[in-house]
Amino acid sequence: MTSPEAHCALPQDDQRHVVQPHKQALLKRLNRIEGQVRGVAQMIQNDRYCVDVLTQVAAIQSALDAVGLQLLEDHTRGCVANAVSAKKGEQAITELMAAVRRFAR
Amino acid sequence: MTSPEAHCALPQDDQRHVVQPHKQALLKRLNRIEGQVRGVAQMIQNDRYCVDVLTQVAAIQSALDAVGLQLLEDHTRGCVANAVSAKKGEQAITELMAAVRRFAR
Amino acid sequence: MTSPEAHCALPQDDQRHVVQPHKQALLKRLNRIEGQVRGVAQMIQNDRYCVDVLTQVAAIQSALDAVGLQLLEDHTRGCVANAVSAKKGEQAITELMAAVRRFAR
Amino acid sequence: MTSPEAHCALPQDDQRHVVQPHKQALLKRLNRIEGQVRGVAQMIQNDRYCVDVLTQVAAIQSALDAVGLQLLEDHTRGCVANAVSAKKGEQAITELMAAVRRFAR
Repeated sequence: MTSPEAHCALPQDDQRHVVQPHKQALLKRLNRIEGQVRGVAQMIQNDRYCVDVLTQVAAIQSALDAVGLQLLEDHTRGCVANAVSAKKGEQAITELMAAVRRFAR
Repeated sequence: MTSPEAHCALPQDDQRHVVQPHKQALLKRLNRIEGQVRGVAQMIQNDRYCVDVLTQVAAIQSALDAVGLQLLEDHTRGCVANAVSAKKGEQAITELMAAVRRFAR
Repeated sequence: MTSPEAHCALPQDDQRHVVQPHKQALLKRLNRIEGQVRGVAQMIQNDRYCVDVLTQVAAIQSALDAVGLQLLEDHTRGCVANAVSAKKGEQAITELMAAVRRFAR
Repeated sequence: MTSPEAHCALPQDDQRHVVQPHKQALLKRLNRIEGQVRGVAQMIQNDRYCVDVLTQVAAIQSALDAVGLQLLEDHTRGCVANAVSAKKGEQAITELMAAVRRFAR
């Protein structure tokens, strides 16, 4: 039995592989999000009222935010913390901050 | 042949139907977004590096933002402008602002 | 006595002047925000813990969001609705959407 | 002469003090932001056009985002990395993620 961190390759690797610690939960969420996107397409196909469609689009965005934040947290606890412990934190944190920036306001 | 606005039912209707003026383009975009969501699930399935996954999640969010803003703009040009011209703008603008708020920072 | 809308010059004017319908409330809020910004500077001056500073920065952003949304709503109810009623809505809505985009996610 | 990290107290401390590594730059930025907030109040006082005011509000938000991201990055490189190296990373990362969440979309 290994901790999630054990799966985390350092960012300097060429072939970085990470088994997500919440892999099954994430796949389930993404499956639901895929269905929500199809649902929005169906609403537009059926000429549903714009504001109702917009409400659904906002719901998908919240669901994707949650996926992004989960990935960000697990990445920080795993890959970034590993890199810091191995005295290779500087590059890992630069990369992390770029990811945060993409999600930031 | 009718203008997009002609399709726009006023928000007081019980059964509001709106043919989106960019209907085909929106359906095409949503189809592509659905594929992107499936792609992220595949990346997680394949244990791809967290930051690469996060980059794809951020790309989906940008694509959804664009869909939301298109819907918001068409709704304003159609339903909201119609309601204002019919002196029923107050309720329509209240509803619009609630939608903007959901997309706002 | 005039309605707020009466104060709203159409966007085609060279010298557009708008008396904000919530002018005093907005000035009061901005005054408070100015104090919050000074407070954050003071916290950094006093070497306060980063996360406490970050919490205050996020509070200022929420307060500014509220100011922005109030301005957006009053602008839509006033200037934009006026322009639509005067059959000059197209340009006003283009301008409105650009402003929404700046606040959007 | 000490590195920025040396100034960083661990989150378990009661009296946490952190000399920001970019202290002078942050104070300068906040001073400029304070002036921008005063400028927006002046614009509203002078009945300036709503969209011009909104543009300035959005500029302040961008400036505050930049301050927030700088603090977040320095906090991660300093306090969080220190905590991880001292095997006290778990709590520090929980706290970090709460801060990221407040800035996230």
